[in-house]
Amino acid sequence: MATIDVASARADTPGCNTVVHLNNAGAALPPQPVLDAVIGHLELEATSGGYEAQGQASEQAERFYTAVAELIGAQADEIAYVENATRAWDMAFYAIPFRPGERILTTTSEYPANGIAFQQAARRHGVRVDVVPDDSHGQISIDALKSELAAGDVRVVAVNHVPTHNGLVNPAQEIGELCRAAGALYLLDACQSVGQLAVNVDEIGCDLLSATGRKFLRGPRGTGFLYARRDVIETLEPPFLDHHAATWTAPDTYEIREDAKRFETWERFVAGQIGLGVAAGYAAALGPHAIEERVTWLANRLREQLSAVPGVTVRDRGARRCGIVTFSMEGHDPDDVVRLLLEHGINVSWSRVSALQFDPAAVPIVRASVHYYNTEDELDRVVDTLARIRPDTR
Amino acid sequence: MATIDVASARADTPGCNTVVHLNNAGAALPPQPVLDAVIGHLELEATSGGYEAQGQASEQAERFYTAVAELIGAQADEIAYVENATRAWDMAFYAIPFRPGERILTTTSEYPANGIAFQQAARRHGVRVDVVPDDSHGQISIDALKSELAAGDVRVVAVNHVPTHNGLVNPAQEIGELCRAAGALYLLDACQSVGQLAVNVDEIGCDLLSATGRKFLRGPRGTGFLYARRDVIETLEPPFLDHHAATWTAPDTYEIREDAKRFETWERFVAGQIGLGVAAGYAAALGPHAIEERVTWLANRLREQLSAVPGVTVRDRGARRCGIVTFSMEGHDPDDVVRLLLEHGINVSWSRVSALQFDPAAVPIVRASVHYYNTEDELDRVVDTLARIRPDTR
Repeated sequence: MATIDVASARADTPGCNTVVHLNNAGAALPPQPVLDAVIGHLELEATSGGYEAQGQASEQAERFYTAVAELIGAQADEIAYVENATRAWDMAFYAIPFRPGERILTTTSEYPANGIAFQQAARRHGVRVDVVPDDSHGQISIDALKSELAAGDVRVVAVNHVPTHNGLVNPAQEIGELCRAAGALYLLDACQSVGQLAVNVDEIGCDLLSATGRKFLRGPRGTGFLYARRDVIETLEPPFLDHHAATWTAPDTYEIREDAKRFETWERFVAGQIGLGVAAGYAAALGPHAIEERVTWLANRLREQLSAVPGVTVRDRGARRCGIVTFSMEGHDPDDVVRLLLEHGINVSWSRVSALQFDPAAVPIVRASVHYYNTEDELDRVVDTLARIRPDTR
Repeated sequence: MATIDVASARADTPGCNTVVHLNNAGAALPPQPVLDAVIGHLELEATSGGYEAQGQASEQAERFYTAVAELIGAQADEIAYVENATRAWDMAFYAIPFRPGERILTTTSEYPANGIAFQQAARRHGVRVDVVPDDSHGQISIDALKSELAAGDVRVVAVNHVPTHNGLVNPAQEIGELCRAAGALYLLDACQSVGQLAVNVDEIGCDLLSATGRKFLRGPRGTGFLYARRDVIETLEPPFLDHHAATWTAPDTYEIREDAKRFETWERFVAGQIGLGVAAGYAAALGPHAIEERVTWLANRLREQLSAVPGVTVRDRGARRCGIVTFSMEGHDPDDVVRLLLEHGINVSWSRVSALQFDPAAVPIVRASVHYYNTEDELDRVVDTLARIRPDTR
């Protein structure tokens, strides 16, 4: 397996000169080719006209579909360009033709936007939302999922691949096997996994997968995508339709297109779509396995280092961990730690408990999320800074 | 009333040096300040991190709401940032709690995306879609609308302010008076009017208004907004909800926010939002009435000139006309004309009949849409080119 050339990755990343960026689970630093593609197209629009520029850049825009498909092991016609991961997930979730009494299974660490959407569906369609309990690792219990599926009436298993706030990687493939066996639809929120882990939709066995551009994929903000397995596409009527998603065949009839573009809107941030295609190609060229290896290694190193800082407790859960490292610091609120590190040129983020209604084990945490372009020196600097700021600000 | 300083507007518009842009109804050329705002923020994201840049630019992002509100005579809390006009319209339309048997009234020239959405609502909720006939000007008949409203059961009057394909301006204010009197919701698609006409939501009397950034407003692609009148906001539960639109208050409950941001998604193209705010402020500073006066004057001049070209027929309808000029050319398909003009550095667009299922009077047309930065010289060049290309390519 190839390894990441870190020096070259950093040379390609303007932000590496200015900040220690450990907020990759928020939004990663884009590489220069992504930035050039987006800004280049915006400038082309300004000098040629928006639609005229799109005509000139149709190949680059089209490349988005093939690049994303290649990255996750899908076909290009199974990919939809959507404005962000939430909207991508929404276009899939709200397309499910729920019947009263059907059940949605999810996990304790599901993203708040999805949790609210479940409740909206429960009110609207009379479906039930069941949260599968965690196992001893603090992640979805496969045994409990098996029992819940066996109890019947499960329309969809909607879970995340990597939660936003606890460092774990859900056993997506085992979930996929159980869903297939039970005949339940499987919607995977891969917002935090695509770009940091090797994600293959056939290995995982998901029917639907949503992701964002801005996080570990290093694409532009305001971009995302939905993968929809070919054999489920036609079972899902998107919640919204426009004249791109469907053809208006007569005053009172329309035909929805057969590919995943039925989940799209015609009008879009074209420069962003091009940029996301470049980002997907960039990740594919580096190699998803090589990226995963380095990200995981860096994160494990950071966990070890943090554990040695007095007053710091690493809060990650799960049997398998990823590039998201969560911790708390005695005597400091997480937002305080974020602010203090920011003053030292270090970007991290934090998470509130109140937003996570399904997760009784959630605590307020600081989140440091690494990417392959981070260095050991940067991690040392974070840990040193934490060790130093602690006594000063008490 | 102030008049437009055309030389200064052109000096501010890089595209004016490279093309004769008469596709402003597709996407207008952005002015330099909009381009600078968008690219500047993208560069800040690349060097500071996406969320960190947003923190630094929170005032500019917030200014979007006040600038748009000021431009259309609304309050900032009545404005939602949405990815494009279709999605903005969708977030309003699909939020209407239709009951079976209720009616949607629309006009012959309604945009295809909306037409398809009406039919989806008809299937989903058992509502009826009634197309109000045109008057002798070829625009919505106010008398017919009055009768349709009197017939009862009208839940919403959903019409466009300016159609995409026939140059007319619908009598939005008269429609608003009738809607108010009848107690019907009034959803105005202002995608083609905001930025070229002076649009005031109180004068018009609409409850909901959707618009895009990229057209006459001269903002970025992938941006739009929804206006929702304060007293209708709480009657509309958005079709999708996330943790920005609602607060997850307990595992099985949520509270939807009270302002128009309930129609938003948390994640977005922040640079685009900032750019759209700059574009709205730019239009407001020039003065919507001054813009409207110049655009209307230029378009009328172009209609007269085109009428004098042998074989060219101006196809515009309506009692009041705008910056969109439509025509056909004997012996040439519209897409042919677009291609030929493009070869001469002139951007126009064209429209297919097949997409317009409600409009029996629609014909295939070439669309030349002017903006205030266009000049008489440019119009002369279009007309001269049309006159010249005709015999050559027969």
